[in-house]
Amino acid sequence: MIGTSNDSSQDLFGLMSRLYPLCRSITGDGVRQTLKILQEYIPIEIREVATGTQVFDWTVPKEWNIRDAYIKNPEGRKIVDFQACNLHVVSYSAPIRKKVSLEILKAHCFTLPQHPQWVPYRTSYYKEDWGFCLSHQQLQELTDGDYEVFIDSSLKEGHLTYGECFLPGSTDDEILISVHVCHPSLANDNLSSMAVASSLYQQLSRLSLRYSYRFLFIPGTIGSITWLSQNESRVSRIRHGLVLACVGDAGSITYKRSRRGNAEIDRAAAQVLRDSGAEHRLTDFSPYGYDERQFCSPGFDLAVGCFMRTPHGTFPEYHTSADNLEFLRPESIADSISKCMGIFQLLEQNKTYINLNPKCEPQLGRRGLYSSIGGQTDGKIRELAMLWVLNLSDGTHNLLDIAEKSHLDFGLIHDAASNLSAHDLLKEV
Amino acid sequence: MIGTSNDSSQDLFGLMSRLYPLCRSITGDGVRQTLKILQEYIPIEIREVATGTQVFDWTVPKEWNIRDAYIKNPEGRKIVDFQACNLHVVSYSAPIRKKVSLEILKAHCFTLPQHPQWVPYRTSYYKEDWGFCLSHQQLQELTDGDYEVFIDSSLKEGHLTYGECFLPGSTDDEILISVHVCHPSLANDNLSSMAVASSLYQQLSRLSLRYSYRFLFIPGTIGSITWLSQNESRVSRIRHGLVLACVGDAGSITYKRSRRGNAEIDRAAAQVLRDSGAEHRLTDFSPYGYDERQFCSPGFDLAVGCFMRTPHGTFPEYHTSADNLEFLRPESIADSISKCMGIFQLLEQNKTYINLNPKCEPQLGRRGLYSSIGGQTDGKIRELAMLWVLNLSDGTHNLLDIAEKSHLDFGLIHDAASNLSAHDLLKEV
Amino acid sequence: MIGTSNDSSQDLFGLMSRLYPLCRSITGDGVRQTLKILQEYIPIEIREVATGTQVFDWTVPKEWNIRDAYIKNPEGRKIVDFQACNLHVVSYSAPIRKKVSLEILKAHCFTLPQHPQWVPYRTSYYKEDWGFCLSHQQLQELTDGDYEVFIDSSLKEGHLTYGECFLPGSTDDEILISVHVCHPSLANDNLSSMAVASSLYQQLSRLSLRYSYRFLFIPGTIGSITWLSQNESRVSRIRHGLVLACVGDAGSITYKRSRRGNAEIDRAAAQVLRDSGAEHRLTDFSPYGYDERQFCSPGFDLAVGCFMRTPHGTFPEYHTSADNLEFLRPESIADSISKCMGIFQLLEQNKTYINLNPKCEPQLGRRGLYSSIGGQTDGKIRELAMLWVLNLSDGTHNLLDIAEKSHLDFGLIHDAASNLSAHDLLKEV
Repeated sequence: MIGTSNDSSQDLFGLMSRLYPLCRSITGDGVRQTLKILQEYIPIEIREVATGTQVFDWTVPKEWNIRDAYIKNPEGRKIVDFQACNLHVVSYSAPIRKKVSLEILKAHCFTLPQHPQWVPYRTSYYKEDWGFCLSHQQLQELTDGDYEVFIDSSLKEGHLTYGECFLPGSTDDEILISVHVCHPSLANDNLSSMAVASSLYQQLSRLSLRYSYRFLFIPGTIGSITWLSQNESRVSRIRHGLVLACVGDAGSITYKRSRRGNAEIDRAAAQVLRDSGAEHRLTDFSPYGYDERQFCSPGFDLAVGCFMRTPHGTFPEYHTSADNLEFLRPESIADSISKCMGIFQLLEQNKTYINLNPKCEPQLGRRGLYSSIGGQTDGKIRELAMLWVLNLSDGTHNLLDIAEKSHLDFGLIHDAASNLSAHDLLKEV
Repeated sequence: MIGTSNDSSQDLFGLMSRLYPLCRSITGDGVRQTLKILQEYIPIEIREVATGTQVFDWTVPKEWNIRDAYIKNPEGRKIVDFQACNLHVVSYSAPIRKKVSLEILKAHCFTLPQHPQWVPYRTSYYKEDWGFCLSHQQLQELTDGDYEVFIDSSLKEGHLTYGECFLPGSTDDEILISVHVCHPSLANDNLSSMAVASSLYQQLSRLSLRYSYRFLFIPGTIGSITWLSQNESRVSRIRHGLVLACVGDAGSITYKRSRRGNAEIDRAAAQVLRDSGAEHRLTDFSPYGYDERQFCSPGFDLAVGCFMRTPHGTFPEYHTSADNLEFLRPESIADSISKCMGIFQLLEQNKTYINLNPKCEPQLGRRGLYSSIGGQTDGKIRELAMLWVLNLSDGTHNLLDIAEKSHLDFGLIHDAASNLSAHDLLKEV
Repeated sequence: MIGTSNDSSQDLFGLMSRLYPLCRSITGDGVRQTLKILQEYIPIEIREVATGTQVFDWTVPKEWNIRDAYIKNPEGRKIVDFQACNLHVVSYSAPIRKKVSLEILKAHCFTLPQHPQWVPYRTSYYKEDWGFCLSHQQLQELTDGDYEVFIDSSLKEGHLTYGECFLPGSTDDEILISVHVCHPSLANDNLSSMAVASSLYQQLSRLSLRYSYRFLFIPGTIGSITWLSQNESRVSRIRHGLVLACVGDAGSITYKRSRRGNAEIDRAAAQVLRDSGAEHRLTDFSPYGYDERQFCSPGFDLAVGCFMRTPHGTFPEYHTSADNLEFLRPESIADSISKCMGIFQLLEQNKTYINLNPKCEPQLGRRGLYSSIGGQTDGKIRELAMLWVLNLSDGTHNLLDIAEKSHLDFGLIHDAASNLSAHDLLKEV
């Protein structure tokens, strides 16, 4: 129940701890269980799309489920056990039960020589095969002999499962928040985003909103393609969007711009990060990354950026067993939530006003707009913000434009606009 | 009489010395006396606008005049005397004559703790009050007892006074030069600009001009608002403009761009400063400063920049008794005049020409345009200037465009255009 | 015969060695002999334009030829001999045979005091005069006495001679390659370009071409003016062009942009130089240099840049006897050819494609476009290139646009486009 949960870091860590052991993939019961747990935090509707459904150039694949898997050494001892760590099985592995030589076993094993203690994460979605992932150290210790490999999986007609939650605002214009839910026991990529998105829902649902917000919990690539394919007519309502990924590590924030490069979401994110005073990176769009690849494909070209902390592939723990719950930082999760809320708040507040007194400055003093403005230093900057808002509110500049031109914080500009509006000096266009 | 004056620095210092002791404010006899003295240098028409006149969002205030003021200590000795320095009285102070305790006196006194020898400059235009400004050192030496405070001022229905001078050119297009005349004994801010504007008038009046020039000597803020309010229909004739302020100190020149940011005046000022080879600063428009705030308000958005040396608020002497005649530098005054004249000359000369021989280069040698060009090095650059003018005179580039693109001095480009025109290779569009 | 020649550096050096001793000028037999030798490498048509022909603002000058020239010292010994070095005579010198004093001789002699061993190169095309060029050392050793000066030249009605070669492609759109042929024994300026242009012809003539290529071998300035004057109606077919000059010295490449500044040729040259990883310089257009001055005059404004190694006037050997065959570097000649071919290849390949699957990414894996892509690292970048091409092939980006936006090599982008087209994922617009 939404009502009974809260969005403290404590709670989000509880959520991520429950989700961590589930064996998610692009289809299957791991995703279903994940979405059901998330429903305690956010009223997700669970959608099922049948295997074989054509989604643009792709086809919804068979559903994959796994119950157990292990490797037994020549002595009959389980040396690799799916129950202990679901990364041990290559995702979408076909079922197998047989004895194989060490040589053949090795041909189906994946390790990370540069991180000999870690187990890698591997998939084989579109090529039927089987494989195990284990630590390089363990692999090197294996001696000759016959090994029993067992994977109790199934790859059958079924469904692709995803979650969707729509939070209506006062307009039909939508802000899209999309996270991928297809990774097994990996924490930063992407339990962190599921937790952040849930918390964003909870915070947003308490506010009076101008925009409607659409949350997607989808398997990467095939999930966004499926959703876009089935919601093509609805896509034009999406004004802004964020793909969230890797939002829980200790690094500073990276915002990757949408394909448009200078969309309002891109400028909003840049402004919020600049105003925060915290270190951050802004990168240009590239067609490699998460589901922004699909949202920003040329046939859609949506204003969807990607909000991350340390980007995929640039931290060694990425797609390994070292991306575990201990890799997450509570303060990073909290900061990601706060920055996203900052971006949404800016978008909600970014309106265009018109100066009702455009010829010369209005007399602010007579209206108490100088004296009512608190301490000296603070007062000066608030006065300056009012002068900027008055000067640029000619109908062609919204508040974000004014913040950018004045190099002042968006919050100051918004407060100035509110103040001036309250004194009938400004009117929303 | 214009005819009998000259514009030497000597003379301008004489002018500023006479203006220095007058107690100017946004209204009153100090301004009237100031304008009368200026009439010896520039044929200003003095305008009077009655108290209570509505000027956009503002109302012309009561007229303030002051005859005397002092503070007497418990022993009856004048310790602060308006006759010695008119900064001692807060401008627009209401009349008062009474004995007050040291505590009450202090509540009405302004000092500069960080510059204990200096007297600050303070105003209270729109809130009726009284106050004295004195050195911090003096304030600290005051002992307990009853002090007699006396301000013989009046705040009555009257007029706002300003000066205007129109120098007609061959077209109705105007260049505006505006200076504020509302500060009492402050030299750089703004006797320097009154002197510079007077000298500019004298120099311009001897030239054959394409533009008409309008000089305003106005109280800050309320003066420009009043003028704009009463001349709204005429404003569209203003093609370019400069607000002059703080043009006499030892610092290098700062040009603050108009709100448009890339207006011809902005580019002309940048070019003249660049060509001078002297250190200078170019800053973007901000709605804080002098009367460019009003000229660049969104309802007017005039191409008016602000020409300064060290900007207001960035030198410690600003708005203190240390901004006195000794703070001025004759060479700075002369340089400010020269740079402003350079800007006006550029605007006068910035025309668009068309190459009458646009297909391939014309044969310059046959016309003596190579040999007639003096010394070797000088000749090369003059030849290059001709080639640039020919190459870019396609009807879409004026001479300033060409100077910018060629990175050559505007003067060289203009000379080349004249030379080519004289040989019928170029025609003004 | 084209068929019997090859384009090896060896061969090009043979060509340049044969051309070196010829006394070229803006007219005369030196140019004719040069073009005849070049005809062994490229099927040039030799054009003759009569003296007195009006070409825009210019007139084709008299034809100048020279058979012999010398200075004999008072003892009757030849101390300066045209037969030894054709730079000794000022180009276009009028005929003379007389005894002159040392003083008068010196008034007609040109030297390079800063390089006392070198002989300068001088011309007097448009002012009838006579003169000798010699080393400064030799001049200083001359003793008083009467010197015999002899120049057996003629300046008569005749022709201006130039060469033109048209290599047709599948369209009428032309790429212009222009080199000047008016300098006597100077190697980098400009035998190097004649050799490079010949080699470019040979290489291009073996290819299937989209563009037609027009090669001009013309005297500087008057040659391009003459050609433009006589081909005005044809000029609109020129889509891109390169003036080649000084392409054989040891320096890195300098590309000077066309007057348009951002023409496709300008961006193509920048891309090829960037992709090469080699040091290079890009400079903006200026109306001083080689025949790009005429091609980029405002009446034509062709997209013609100038491809050089070390620019004219910036190496001390420029226009002196030290710009000889030893000043050339075979590897520089080869590199210049290769870079020019790279530019032409880019222009040939720079087409616009449309993504036939614009909604979401197509499934590359199912088409073998992931696995077919070789080694891991190479594969990643080829995959990325495909994603960029798909993402930006919306009809508004050509392949050069995509290379610029992706910061990937043009070759990678082109290969990706070819690969995608072969799989029916892309179609040329």
